[in-house]
Amino acid sequence: MLLEKTLERIRPLDRSFEIEAQKRLDSLTKPQGSLGKLEELARCIAVMQGKVPPQIGRKLLFIFAADHGIAEESVSAYPRAVTAQMTYNFLRGGAAINVLARHYDVQVEVIDVGVDHEFSELQGLRNCKIRRGTGNFSRGAAMTRAEARQSIETGIRLVEEVVSKKPFLLGAGEMGIGNTSSAAAILCALTGASPRHVVGRGTGIDDPTWKRKVAAIERGLELNQPDAKEPLDVLTKMGGLEIGAMTGLILGAAAFRVPMVLDGFISDAAALLAQRLCPDTHDFLFASHLSPETGHRFMLEMLQLAPVLNLEMRLGEGTGACILMGLLEAAAKILGEMATFESAGVGTKLP
Amino acid sequence: MLLEKTLERIRPLDRSFEIEAQKRLDSLTKPQGSLGKLEELARCIAVMQGKVPPQIGRKLLFIFAADHGIAEESVSAYPRAVTAQMTYNFLRGGAAINVLARHYDVQVEVIDVGVDHEFSELQGLRNCKIRRGTGNFSRGAAMTRAEARQSIETGIRLVEEVVSKKPFLLGAGEMGIGNTSSAAAILCALTGASPRHVVGRGTGIDDPTWKRKVAAIERGLELNQPDAKEPLDVLTKMGGLEIGAMTGLILGAAAFRVPMVLDGFISDAAALLAQRLCPDTHDFLFASHLSPETGHRFMLEMLQLAPVLNLEMRLGEGTGACILMGLLEAAAKILGEMATFESAGVGTKLP
Repeated sequence: MLLEKTLERIRPLDRSFEIEAQKRLDSLTKPQGSLGKLEELARCIAVMQGKVPPQIGRKLLFIFAADHGIAEESVSAYPRAVTAQMTYNFLRGGAAINVLARHYDVQVEVIDVGVDHEFSELQGLRNCKIRRGTGNFSRGAAMTRAEARQSIETGIRLVEEVVSKKPFLLGAGEMGIGNTSSAAAILCALTGASPRHVVGRGTGIDDPTWKRKVAAIERGLELNQPDAKEPLDVLTKMGGLEIGAMTGLILGAAAFRVPMVLDGFISDAAALLAQRLCPDTHDFLFASHLSPETGHRFMLEMLQLAPVLNLEMRLGEGTGACILMGLLEAAAKILGEMATFESAGVGTKLP
Repeated sequence: MLLEKTLERIRPLDRSFEIEAQKRLDSLTKPQGSLGKLEELARCIAVMQGKVPPQIGRKLLFIFAADHGIAEESVSAYPRAVTAQMTYNFLRGGAAINVLARHYDVQVEVIDVGVDHEFSELQGLRNCKIRRGTGNFSRGAAMTRAEARQSIETGIRLVEEVVSKKPFLLGAGEMGIGNTSSAAAILCALTGASPRHVVGRGTGIDDPTWKRKVAAIERGLELNQPDAKEPLDVLTKMGGLEIGAMTGLILGAAAFRVPMVLDGFISDAAALLAQRLCPDTHDFLFASHLSPETGHRFMLEMLQLAPVLNLEMRLGEGTGACILMGLLEAAAKILGEMATFESAGVGTKLP
């Protein structure tokens, strides 16, 4: 039972490193606290790693792609085929996430956990397909409980595999036409929020489509009656496969004490599932940015995470996570590379 | 008359490139507008350069160091000697700006425009010293009108020199114990704001020091009577030499149509002088971040610039500018490197 084993492995952070990190930050040649959030980020990484200064290394971002049965209800501005087409685009390096990943030196791996398309053996694509897209949750459960568990364990296994290479940061990204519907449905199922308050415009839908989307989620919640106390039940009934895989990635990161960088609305729904499975997961998470997607602010409140950036981004793919991974590395380097007042012979604060 | 020649050279932007840049942004494989501010930044760079996609190249940040006579009034948390000590720290690569510049691939040049210290010939330090620090503006003018002009022309000459190397972005940073006092005094002189409303904590001063700082600025404004309609008079009377040099750098960037990235409170005071000398300068400026320094929000309103980041940074040196330079390059690469719906064979929006 990989999921249960992983949950048991997650431990609260040892906060004593916070004092050591703060002491080091205050010895560096700058007024105390003058690097603001950068200092906070550096301190968090040091505590997660249990090292001052933190050890810097590879930044890895996983993009999970999967299709969604709910797309049948015409809840997206784009046709379902776009999930597979964008997966090809990731592999060719033409998507926004590829551009940002090259710029911020983030390594990207693309995982098919449920795209409704048979890819031939393709360089760079990892085949972890569980099924060709979820079922339409407005008409029944999105998947079986075994499939939900399999999606989570897929994410955990990825962390187990890469952890030996001592990753510095892990990031979560996704692609899946219809997945803001699943993410909103999960948020509603776990918190009791009403769909009309948290459902947003996703890829940019018009009013009639938004109304259809709200109604589809309302029907799905009514029909499936997901159990708020049972995150695996919520994932099973509301989907999706890439959300489950991100949940596993997040749990794996917490289990192996690797700082985990979330992206936007979809990855944060996965984080909410992970936190409900194990609240201590919270301490290993960075919320990269606030998106204009309607329910995102509420989602972040539920996660008790403060977003670092607000760039009005709502693309997904891991684009927000990628930008923050660059900033987190900068923060960690501050702790490791700056001179101290003593080493640089700079006069300290006046008495 | 280099200053006058430069002012004449500054022209309003040709907005027609905005349409071309937007058309290209909308053809890329992402929902329209979904990269939020990143798209806005990319569009701005394209318009400034008059090129779609923009041409990417070297990112150059100048750090101007100078001392301030007002430091005699004990308005800072650090002794005056720190200006020279930090200048050495920049040259050795141990300051926060050095760490960030290495991380974001920004080239840093350090310019002595008025440090109260005789540096021996030092690798990496450019000697443009005008005088060993300004006079104490609470007891008289900070400098002569000729020195104020010389400081501005120093900044302009740097742009003239580097422009042949086709810089992609220019950034402004500074070091000078006491310089938040000059910056606040300039803000008050140009806008009529009251010192008690815009004077902040600088390097982190306590209440008695803050009161001294407000009183010193009030005395300086009362005594010198800077003419709000005459930016050169304001600079002459309230200082400082590094602020004048940044004003020149900003004017030079606008004259040669190079995107210019501001840092925080001090560089923005220089930008306010530049905008008052020539309002069209506005269109070539990026405000990198909002700092917690008290008057900064008001300063940005006066500049009619929206800060991109809010990381609660208040260090100066160009640290905020440097982070934004990394993000601006990412934005420009989005325009240049992403695949289009057509080239990637991705289905466009549903009808």
